[in-house]
Amino acid sequence: MENKLVKNAVGRLVPTIINGQEQVPYMGVNKYKPSGKIHARNIPSNVDYPNDGNKKVSSLKEALINCGLRNGMIISTHHHFRNGDLIANQIFDIAKELGIKNLIWFPSASFPCHDHLIQYLEDGTIHHIEGSMNGPLGKYTSEGKMKGTAVLRSHGGRYQAIQDGEIVIDIAVIGAACSDPFGNANGLEGDSASGLLGFALADSQYADKVIVVTDNMVEFPCIPWQIQGNYVDFTVEIEKVGIPERIVSGTTEITKSPDRLYLAELTAKFCELTGIIHDGFSFQAGAGGTSLAVSEYFAQIMREKGIIARFARGGSNKYLVKILEEGLIDYILDGQTFDLDGVRSMAKNPKHVATSPFTSYNFHSKGNFAGIVDVVILGATEVDVNFNANVVTHSDGYLLHGIGGWQNCLYSKTVILPIPLFRDRMPVILDEVTTICGPGELIDVIVTERGIAINPLRTDLIEKTKNSGLPIKTIQELKEEAEQICGKPEKPKLSNEIVAAIKWVDGTIIDVVRKIK
Amino acid sequence: MENKLVKNAVGRLVPTIINGQEQVPYMGVNKYKPSGKIHARNIPSNVDYPNDGNKKVSSLKEALINCGLRNGMIISTHHHFRNGDLIANQIFDIAKELGIKNLIWFPSASFPCHDHLIQYLEDGTIHHIEGSMNGPLGKYTSEGKMKGTAVLRSHGGRYQAIQDGEIVIDIAVIGAACSDPFGNANGLEGDSASGLLGFALADSQYADKVIVVTDNMVEFPCIPWQIQGNYVDFTVEIEKVGIPERIVSGTTEITKSPDRLYLAELTAKFCELTGIIHDGFSFQAGAGGTSLAVSEYFAQIMREKGIIARFARGGSNKYLVKILEEGLIDYILDGQTFDLDGVRSMAKNPKHVATSPFTSYNFHSKGNFAGIVDVVILGATEVDVNFNANVVTHSDGYLLHGIGGWQNCLYSKTVILPIPLFRDRMPVILDEVTTICGPGELIDVIVTERGIAINPLRTDLIEKTKNSGLPIKTIQELKEEAEQICGKPEKPKLSNEIVAAIKWVDGTIIDVVRKIK
Repeated sequence: MENKLVKNAVGRLVPTIINGQEQVPYMGVNKYKPSGKIHARNIPSNVDYPNDGNKKVSSLKEALINCGLRNGMIISTHHHFRNGDLIANQIFDIAKELGIKNLIWFPSASFPCHDHLIQYLEDGTIHHIEGSMNGPLGKYTSEGKMKGTAVLRSHGGRYQAIQDGEIVIDIAVIGAACSDPFGNANGLEGDSASGLLGFALADSQYADKVIVVTDNMVEFPCIPWQIQGNYVDFTVEIEKVGIPERIVSGTTEITKSPDRLYLAELTAKFCELTGIIHDGFSFQAGAGGTSLAVSEYFAQIMREKGIIARFARGGSNKYLVKILEEGLIDYILDGQTFDLDGVRSMAKNPKHVATSPFTSYNFHSKGNFAGIVDVVILGATEVDVNFNANVVTHSDGYLLHGIGGWQNCLYSKTVILPIPLFRDRMPVILDEVTTICGPGELIDVIVTERGIAINPLRTDLIEKTKNSGLPIKTIQELKEEAEQICGKPEKPKLSNEIVAAIKWVDGTIIDVVRKIK
Repeated sequence: MENKLVKNAVGRLVPTIINGQEQVPYMGVNKYKPSGKIHARNIPSNVDYPNDGNKKVSSLKEALINCGLRNGMIISTHHHFRNGDLIANQIFDIAKELGIKNLIWFPSASFPCHDHLIQYLEDGTIHHIEGSMNGPLGKYTSEGKMKGTAVLRSHGGRYQAIQDGEIVIDIAVIGAACSDPFGNANGLEGDSASGLLGFALADSQYADKVIVVTDNMVEFPCIPWQIQGNYVDFTVEIEKVGIPERIVSGTTEITKSPDRLYLAELTAKFCELTGIIHDGFSFQAGAGGTSLAVSEYFAQIMREKGIIARFARGGSNKYLVKILEEGLIDYILDGQTFDLDGVRSMAKNPKHVATSPFTSYNFHSKGNFAGIVDVVILGATEVDVNFNANVVTHSDGYLLHGIGGWQNCLYSKTVILPIPLFRDRMPVILDEVTTICGPGELIDVIVTERGIAINPLRTDLIEKTKNSGLPIKTIQELKEEAEQICGKPEKPKLSNEIVAAIKWVDGTIIDVVRKIK
């Protein structure tokens, strides 16, 4: 295999080999179809597990040793504990203590709390990271310091990669707020409650060995079993799996910025006037301040017009829970709970339903939920004049964010990005984005404080907004307005060295991230 | 491959090839360990499914044609509709109409309502059946009329066989009381409510093509999604999937027979005096009249002694639901609901939990629930002096029953069979059973109206019942008492021709059923 750069369907030069594995360059929306079979794990037998169901061992170290931890293994964790995670760091502390080298860490995402692991990237305990990197580890990667190449995937793409055997997890370590000795686990009860554990679902189903770690071991059966003990090899009870105040923040609040509120209001207005907000509709908004505000404006419109939504997709939070309880939505289909109101609601309300990247986002399934959603409100660090958007790098080229469910959500019926026209005097709409994470043909509407640009492909929306009074402009016009204010932006200074690859939802390479000069 | 008969670990002569597939003879409890990988289905892609999630087609026929129905395919169905199923017969009516031949029907169980299919076994539409056969199809098989060899598996064994790729389902047809157009489905709501759909879980996960058929199509999302639409290819709405009064019978009642009540009382007494009934214990009793009575006696003892069970395994029914609501048990872990009280309870009570053959019984998993249960109360058609038991054939040799979860439950901590000493003047305890379905070493106690026999392996129970006042006898003594009353029983008249194979929980062949002479 000779590694070479080829131009993919969005015009980016991407390598054909990453970390020794052959890659398929992005071929366009719905153009690549997989052949082959899903990953088949070894057939286990009850003979090798205690008949009474008690799989408890005394420590995480013992569990890792029992799982045969050794050089070069792929170790996975989930990010439901967000910046309060206490598990991932411990795993690699143990690996270091045992003298293990060249591990691949495969988290569903990493957070600033994981900067502890930089020492292990330095000393060779960890070879590289495949997973979304928020903050310090992304910066470290951008600086070209990681030995291998980072691979970033969406939530659905991570499920797809595990399912398809693109990445075969040797040991999955699943922290849980609540577990029984058999390994049934959930994120609903206990000091480290995180709501659900959907990001660990694929890991539990497909990993060779699975460890559940909890600080709240209950008697069998742990109900509900969001993670099924039948997939679990060992269980461990420790004092603390996470830092509660960093797992669920009670401080997720609607933006108070007048600019952001205006973006939210304009977005809601657009959805109202185009008929997107209609009886039985569905929506997804993220957990950022602007997105929360959009949900609130949606709720106002729904109340005024007597409209009931069939479902809202979460990330849930107190605002979404409130409108569920008010009866404005029939269901919350939730992928992660962002605050304690979300956790409590999911624990008690059967209409607040836990989902997983399998149900919601996996592109290599017989359909998923994304396409069923009428409208999603998403963010972006940059958008180009062809509506291609970036969510992982900043305009200075630094890799600082994960993809999350962003790529997957682009399959929803209408995708709206409310974004400021510039940030820190850097235009957000550009001729070319630093990194393409999503192809423009899937992005329908850009809402800025100076006007709304509709993707020319969406002639229906263009038609509907004629004479609507909405400030419709072309994206070119918006870009020029930004440049008039901020000047033509400089390109980030990047070397040719590839430090990270961005996968599309089908496992192909849509773009790469290059080392900062 | 040359087919030959070999003697397995329970001394039965079994073939090495069945229906052209190589087989492993039963090797003893926990002796066979699988190698290899689980079945890997083809990787699907969202590209091939409607982006809006609507997979509805106009008829079951259209769905079957879309799935590529053709000669020799394996078609699966579940038996949650029991004797009220209207789906399986329709599938083969359609196959007949289309001129398809040599299908293999792979139901989780068949019932008398499926005698409609005998015509298709006759005319070659169906080649043979793999699955538990209750009644007419079993009789038909016993008479040597089926072209292929029947293969009977336990609920867990069926999951195991699908998971391990011993049987690869071409098309799974899943009838559901409630479904959405995407294929999310449950058995909880609608005229054909059957409670849960756990017997179809493996089919949905591993079949090449999956069709959900419902008479109650609701708007997305169908909650809870006991079957996940992400596994489903097509959905169909028809007028009626089942006959409600035959799905859930409101008539499951505790036995009124004084003999049976005595068996139940004696069983409960045994469990009380041996300390099996203790705070936090768990139990499973079936849905037969005697088993229901055992549960009631258990409840009486628990009330008197202030004992709370951690969980009861269902088949649930109004009696079990009552004691859940009374607070005598923390949870029902339910595999199938036998009456409408069970359905209602499962729909509304989070402590009434749906399980599946995967969680409960799959032997090729990292443990299952069976071994966690303190005591199970089961039936048998025959038991031999080594405690080996039969549940599928009668003493006349006819195959008339399925295995159900019976084999899987044998892994529970204590297995008790309350059985009459004789039925229709035929002794039930014999020198040798017609068909060995479970090895004696896993069967602990036989309770009869003339005394209790404890397996000599259970020295602990023998010790605990010394001076207990319980009528403890040897199994030899019980056998002799039966023979004194009924005379020495005659062996059934059987030919050498093998008409059915009985699989053990690990996929090996524990015994065969031979043609009636």
